Amino acid sequence: MGMDYSKIDRWILAEDSFDPVHLGKCEAVMSLGNGYLGLRSATEEKYLGETRNLLINGTFDLFDSSEVTELPNAADVTAMELWIDGERFSLDQGGYAGYSRELNIHTGELTRQVEWTSPGGSRVGLSFRRMVSLKRLHDIAMEVTVICLDRPVTVKLRSGIDARVTNTGTQHFTEGEKRFYEKKYIQLLETTLQSDITFVLNAVHRFALNGVPLELETDVNIDRRVIYADYTVELKPGDAFTAEKYANVSTTRDLDCAGLSVPQLQARTLEALKASADLGYQALAEESAAQWRLEVWEKAPIEISGDKNSRMDLFALRFAQYHMRLMLPRHDNRMNIGAKGLSGEGYKGHCFWDTEIFLLPYYMFTDPEAARKLEEYRYLSLPGAHKKAQDNGYQGAMFPWESAWLDDGETCPLYMGTDILTGTPIKVWSGIIEQHITADVAFGAWQYATIAGDQDFLERYGYELIMDTATFWASRLEPGEDGRYHINDVVGPDEYHEHVNDNAFTNYMACWNLNKAIAYHDHLKTADPALFQRLDEKLSLSQVYPKWVDGAARLYLPQPTAEGILPMDDRFMDGEEIDLSKYKNQEFVAGIMKDYNLDQIQRLQVCKQADCLVLFYLLEDQFPPEVKRASWAYYEARTVHDSSLSLSTHSVQAADMGELEMAYDLFRRASMIDLGPYMGTSDAGIHAASFGGVWQCVIYGFGGVRMLNGKLRIQPNLPCGWDRLDFTLMWKGQRLRVSAAKDSLTVENLTKTAPVFVTLNGVETEL
Amino acid sequence: MGMDYSKIDRWILAEDSFDPVHLGKCEAVMSLGNGYLGLRSATEEKYLGETRNLLINGTFDLFDSSEVTELPNAADVTAMELWIDGERFSLDQGGYAGYSRELNIHTGELTRQVEWTSPGGSRVGLSFRRMVSLKRLHDIAMEVTVICLDRPVTVKLRSGIDARVTNTGTQHFTEGEKRFYEKKYIQLLETTLQSDITFVLNAVHRFALNGVPLELETDVNIDRRVIYADYTVELKPGDAFTAEKYANVSTTRDLDCAGLSVPQLQARTLEALKASADLGYQALAEESAAQWRLEVWEKAPIEISGDKNSRMDLFALRFAQYHMRLMLPRHDNRMNIGAKGLSGEGYKGHCFWDTEIFLLPYYMFTDPEAARKLEEYRYLSLPGAHKKAQDNGYQGAMFPWESAWLDDGETCPLYMGTDILTGTPIKVWSGIIEQHITADVAFGAWQYATIAGDQDFLERYGYELIMDTATFWASRLEPGEDGRYHINDVVGPDEYHEHVNDNAFTNYMACWNLNKAIAYHDHLKTADPALFQRLDEKLSLSQVYPKWVDGAARLYLPQPTAEGILPMDDRFMDGEEIDLSKYKNQEFVAGIMKDYNLDQIQRLQVCKQADCLVLFYLLEDQFPPEVKRASWAYYEARTVHDSSLSLSTHSVQAADMGELEMAYDLFRRASMIDLGPYMGTSDAGIHAASFGGVWQCVIYGFGGVRMLNGKLRIQPNLPCGWDRLDFTLMWKGQRLRVSAAKDSLTVENLTKTAPVFVTLNGVETEL
Repeated sequence: MGMDYSKIDRWILAEDSFDPVHLGKCEAVMSLGNGYLGLRSATEEKYLGETRNLLINGTFDLFDSSEVTELPNAADVTAMELWIDGERFSLDQGGYAGYSRELNIHTGELTRQVEWTSPGGSRVGLSFRRMVSLKRLHDIAMEVTVICLDRPVTVKLRSGIDARVTNTGTQHFTEGEKRFYEKKYIQLLETTLQSDITFVLNAVHRFALNGVPLELETDVNIDRRVIYADYTVELKPGDAFTAEKYANVSTTRDLDCAGLSVPQLQARTLEALKASADLGYQALAEESAAQWRLEVWEKAPIEISGDKNSRMDLFALRFAQYHMRLMLPRHDNRMNIGAKGLSGEGYKGHCFWDTEIFLLPYYMFTDPEAARKLEEYRYLSLPGAHKKAQDNGYQGAMFPWESAWLDDGETCPLYMGTDILTGTPIKVWSGIIEQHITADVAFGAWQYATIAGDQDFLERYGYELIMDTATFWASRLEPGEDGRYHINDVVGPDEYHEHVNDNAFTNYMACWNLNKAIAYHDHLKTADPALFQRLDEKLSLSQVYPKWVDGAARLYLPQPTAEGILPMDDRFMDGEEIDLSKYKNQEFVAGIMKDYNLDQIQRLQVCKQADCLVLFYLLEDQFPPEVKRASWAYYEARTVHDSSLSLSTHSVQAADMGELEMAYDLFRRASMIDLGPYMGTSDAGIHAASFGGVWQCVIYGFGGVRMLNGKLRIQPNLPCGWDRLDFTLMWKGQRLRVSAAKDSLTVENLTKTAPVFVTLNGVETEL
Repeated sequence: MGMDYSKIDRWILAEDSFDPVHLGKCEAVMSLGNGYLGLRSATEEKYLGETRNLLINGTFDLFDSSEVTELPNAADVTAMELWIDGERFSLDQGGYAGYSRELNIHTGELTRQVEWTSPGGSRVGLSFRRMVSLKRLHDIAMEVTVICLDRPVTVKLRSGIDARVTNTGTQHFTEGEKRFYEKKYIQLLETTLQSDITFVLNAVHRFALNGVPLELETDVNIDRRVIYADYTVELKPGDAFTAEKYANVSTTRDLDCAGLSVPQLQARTLEALKASADLGYQALAEESAAQWRLEVWEKAPIEISGDKNSRMDLFALRFAQYHMRLMLPRHDNRMNIGAKGLSGEGYKGHCFWDTEIFLLPYYMFTDPEAARKLEEYRYLSLPGAHKKAQDNGYQGAMFPWESAWLDDGETCPLYMGTDILTGTPIKVWSGIIEQHITADVAFGAWQYATIAGDQDFLERYGYELIMDTATFWASRLEPGEDGRYHINDVVGPDEYHEHVNDNAFTNYMACWNLNKAIAYHDHLKTADPALFQRLDEKLSLSQVYPKWVDGAARLYLPQPTAEGILPMDDRFMDGEEIDLSKYKNQEFVAGIMKDYNLDQIQRLQVCKQADCLVLFYLLEDQFPPEVKRASWAYYEARTVHDSSLSLSTHSVQAADMGELEMAYDLFRRASMIDLGPYMGTSDAGIHAASFGGVWQCVIYGFGGVRMLNGKLRIQPNLPCGWDRLDFTLMWKGQRLRVSAAKDSLTVENLTKTAPVFVTLNGVETEL
């Protein structure tokens, strides 16, 4: 009972019984969207404890100076409440049979079927369909069918637009105009408090009885922050009543509405609504499904064949692709990807290093245009990075740990959670001292440009980004008594250890960043003097370059112990060891925080997530295999995987080491983070980065794909249960088809407009 | 099923079955409070559609310039959610028996009993108690008892402070500090956005098993806008587990916290919480019940004896007294009484003419000190009245139709509801042109001062208020071609007719106001030259006095028709007549607005409520009986009583006319507005003024009590089913006991520190 995986071969994730206690699970993992908007899949009928989210990417708003900016929860259009003979349809009352809720990830449609018997004994068949168009980015369409199964029933439908929703109590909107047009078209406006973005929402209903269009009297209601209509219809046994609801949402921040006044936007969106409603639900659904094929399934096809488990593995991968499309703002480079995508309020829609380190690989290798937009966003948000550097007494670009709208700068909250000892909120240091993000951004830009072969990007954005971040690092280094530079008082990727010195990940990545800037500098000076001069004027290269060189040369890089273990920082290995078995297998995360407060955890040999291991992964050729192996064994034993980013990193590393069983086990655990049967962990939204991690487990880990020093390498290590793995990759504008079997590897260049050099199982090959 | 009136002789209003569709009814009519705070009686467990309100009088806040100021809904302390063997206790799931919810209006305690069987078959007995202390104005106390009836059960309790609540979607608070002290005391701070009032809420739990104190482990949780703890206990069959919750709320606007810094307030309120918890629930409840006796039941005792119905009549009267104490800010003269008291968000906590015309009589005659505070509030809000006059191009004091904090001025919203024809919001004209409020305020001040014999009030506030309002009227009058002054373009008490000229109520009351000012002026000039001079300096009497005199002399006062009907305004009697039977008997109000829009209603002979009739009532000796009678017949037939103020006015008039059967019928309908079995009409809160109306029906109508031209008159007209009516009255500082029977009337002066002159059944008597 609960999640139902029996239909995965038909691309369907299902739920076979309704769980009113864990509404958040399916709301999040079955959410719909298109990168412009994300629609959490709260049901048509309301339940206590539901979270009804409609999030529009990039529409950040700050409620008050005591908060941080976040994606505001727009007015709800999904509620369609039914009363059957005066009794409110709700699955926790009366009885029901034949329940199934299905998300079809191939088409992006959500459906639900149930036969409901009201407490008073009226029996109806109900089916629901719902979609967010991938073609018309503003459009949501729904369909509800009520079939009278027994005695005649009176059906009342209440449906409209409800702007009483909040972000867990915070209201980001002032109330705007609410109107019925022609007693039929419903329009509601609302405007964000600080960012002054006006949202225009429209909705209209169409009805049919037994397939014949039906006009129903509209009982209109406008109240505070809400506008809706009541419709009533009498059904005889066998009658099927269908109510379609078409809705759209647009904002004054939308690129495709640029320059429109609010009244123009009102008129245009109302016209668009009429057009969609005239097209009808079915046609809209087919149009959107075609777009899914075009944009995702044909662009980035993946096939796995093998044992029974491999079917689930394949579905998990496609499920990851589904969600990675939902969260992707393909339409606009002024926004990025939130840590929960657009599937919940968690992390407030902010983007983290998750984008570059976990998600970017998928987009770079399958949809480079979209990947470029994500990195353009970083470039466009340089003003915020400069501001953060200045505020902290540094130079260059210091990227925010949490990033929202372009000029917001750092948006990491200052406090979160409760200290179990003192009863006070826990200070979040990441916004101040989790500084590796700046190198991660530079690394991402370089990765994208290299894999896409996008020289234009480099020239417009990439060089500058990498140099400007190097300048930050040069200003950040602290001379030590040993004559070396150190980076003290930071948080590394492992956030259970704050205020550490010389975090290996941070220092190595900073060093990489400096060296990459130096290399580009030296290259451009002769190769492109005009560009060099432009960059020099902007970044004062003559002043900062010597600092980069000095910094890179003297930066202290932690070295492996005699046992081959790379020290994560200057104190971890001196910490107390405790038995972690209790925490390693908990269904919920951060269980250790219930027993120890953060001050205590600091002194334990406990990792929230991989730290050195991410480093080995990103800079894999800088560390010898024996160091990786010894470090892996040491750290994995001490890692509670309290970050959704952790498992996939470990899996890829294990695959690289040839530990395929372990790699597969870790992959499977990673793939179940949102997809799995645990009901409580996706409440605040899906784990965006973990989907990128799942793709990396498969393509990087088992597929053995890697870009190393600008070169493509493919060296598959299929897990035992898999016979074949087929996928495509974009490499410098060429589309490659990769077919990996246990004993064979075929790579074909489908584009063939340029030669591709690739190292296949150690053999340099030209395609 | 529903409301249960079988226990009214024990002062108990009960509900005998739980109605999840009409939660608002008992939430409002069973609400608790003490004039400082109002606590809506949402249940301990949560339901969809509930409204969980904690309103602190006077703490108005403006969310945004598109809204009007309102009483913000403070963080909730009442939720105490239970899980029995992992299943959430909720009456709409599983089964229940023996349900009873009871409000004891004598003690102000709310209790609830039920035996619940969880969907999984666990059976428990549950009882709940709850009180708001009338002695400790900041205190709320609750008690939950769980009895294990069958097999052993695990009970989980989740309880804390929840600041995610809003005012129908509007969030008035920024989040403040949230703390656990000693892993036990819960504290949450929140601050209003614009008015910058910090609320400090505290809560603590105490447990017992079978009467023996119990310590339970506290699983603490702090999240956004919420702080709570989970407690778990195992029960064996027969075990009784009790959880007490003590909470308090204070604000930086409180008079009794004046001068305290926020940290001082935090510390002091935490100490107060500990003291209350140490006292224990039972002692707090007894202390509060004693205060109810002292402040209400002994101060304003009423007894009715008669037939069976008279028991309900008496209960209705006491129920009115109960609510009139809940809404009364006895502790602070900077606030008044909202149209819904503190029992809901309706009318946003604003006060209207309801205070002076409907509620003040009860307070004047039973609790003059409190009545004085209400009128002091009007005096203190003169700056807002001056501002409104200036904004509208007038002079003197133009009181706001809706009044909130002292210097807010007009707070009437500009739009409300939906026009059924155009689909657009309806403009509310009352804030601009419902101008009779200014005369009503003056009338209230005069009534209070006269009945209380409070010369000090007159000298400090009353004279000035009455003169300053007269100046407004003098500036408001418009000369007509007939050589008279007119008051054009107003809304009278009957709000179904907007933009009328020479509304009878408005013109007569304005004239009264002018004449009263003239009389006081003439009196003071000789009787108290010092005060006169002070008023002259403040109000420029020498300039405005001639305008008063001119205005009063030339103001047009509508005259009765040949049939004796006083025209309500210059056009009502020309309107179209329609059949009103459909609307006069609807359970909900404003049903006519579903069929006609306001433009159409303007042209009909339809009254929302009494208009001329209120005038006859307030200025009863200015109109001959035949005019009252003819007008009554004419208007009552045309009145849909869509205002809760309407029935009681008609009832008193009917009693005055000797139409006792009709008076009694109207009284009974008036007394059922909130108390009755209609489940939908109290959702937004009780109807404050209607409680005053109920008291007036009995004391003014049947008791025949009236102050006329400064003199007390008592001339009872008991309805047929009543044998006796006993009550007390305060008159110029003397407490009178009145005993009226069918054929006898006894009035005794209990205070006897001064002689009382009273006209008893037409006979002037000295007591």
